[in-house]
Amino acid sequence: MPKPYNQTCPIAQALDIVGDRWTLLIVRDLFLGQRRFSELLASLPGIPPRLLSGRLKRLEQRGLIERAVYSQYPLRAEYRLTDEGLTLAPVLGAILTWGLEHCFSGPEEVRETIRQKFASAASPAPAAATETVAG
Amino acid sequence: MPKPYNQTCPIAQALDIVGDRWTLLIVRDLFLGQRRFSELLASLPGIPPRLLSGRLKRLEQRGLIERAVYSQYPLRAEYRLTDEGLTLAPVLGAILTWGLEHCFSGPEEVRETIRQKFASAASPAPAAATETVAG
Repeated sequence: MPKPYNQTCPIAQALDIVGDRWTLLIVRDLFLGQRRFSELLASLPGIPPRLLSGRLKRLEQRGLIERAVYSQYPLRAEYRLTDEGLTLAPVLGAILTWGLEHCFSGPEEVRETIRQKFASAASPAPAAATETVAG
Repeated sequence: MPKPYNQTCPIAQALDIVGDRWTLLIVRDLFLGQRRFSELLASLPGIPPRLLSGRLKRLEQRGLIERAVYSQYPLRAEYRLTDEGLTLAPVLGAILTWGLEHCFSGPEEVRETIRQKFASAASPAPAAATETVAG
């Protein structure tokens, strides 16, 4: 775990929590509906399992995700963003928008599909029964 | 330099550019008007000079900052965000807002001062002659 920046600046303080390598990608995947450790591991190629485990523990300690055991034998847990964790949506949204405009090289229809998928995940509706279409 | 995530996701691609430790704080400080290596070093306690130098070089290679030599003997340069670098304002803004709401513990007037300082830096006016007040 890197040392905290230890600055009074709120940008640095936010990055002390979500600025470590992999953390925002874990939040992204929970945001998009992934729940299990094995799913997260599969969608984050290259992440060392112990690092994923450490990041999840840290996010849980900060109240951004919660962990629920769904099987005792073998021990298996699911992870979900808490209401506080869901408040990271605008941060992910801003990074997504910048990435789409300045990094992403796919065709416009893929771009639009990604926007819609994110808007749908960010919508406060209890279930994804209807798709929210980005404006 | 950490390995890139190497994902097609625009969030991961954006983080490959600005997600490394210290990078967004360097962008923040350039955003707020710092220009010189020594100024950046002073405002980022704990950053190793070689790391700062590497991050600046990488941001320059990606077209997000530009470097202008202002003294040949001794060699001294100034750094500025390019127009493309300035497009990171909404990313910093989203992180700032989240940090103010979820991490920052200072009084409301300090919070408001920080918001105004950021809004003023993010305003497209050519010089900071008038303060832009956040809504």
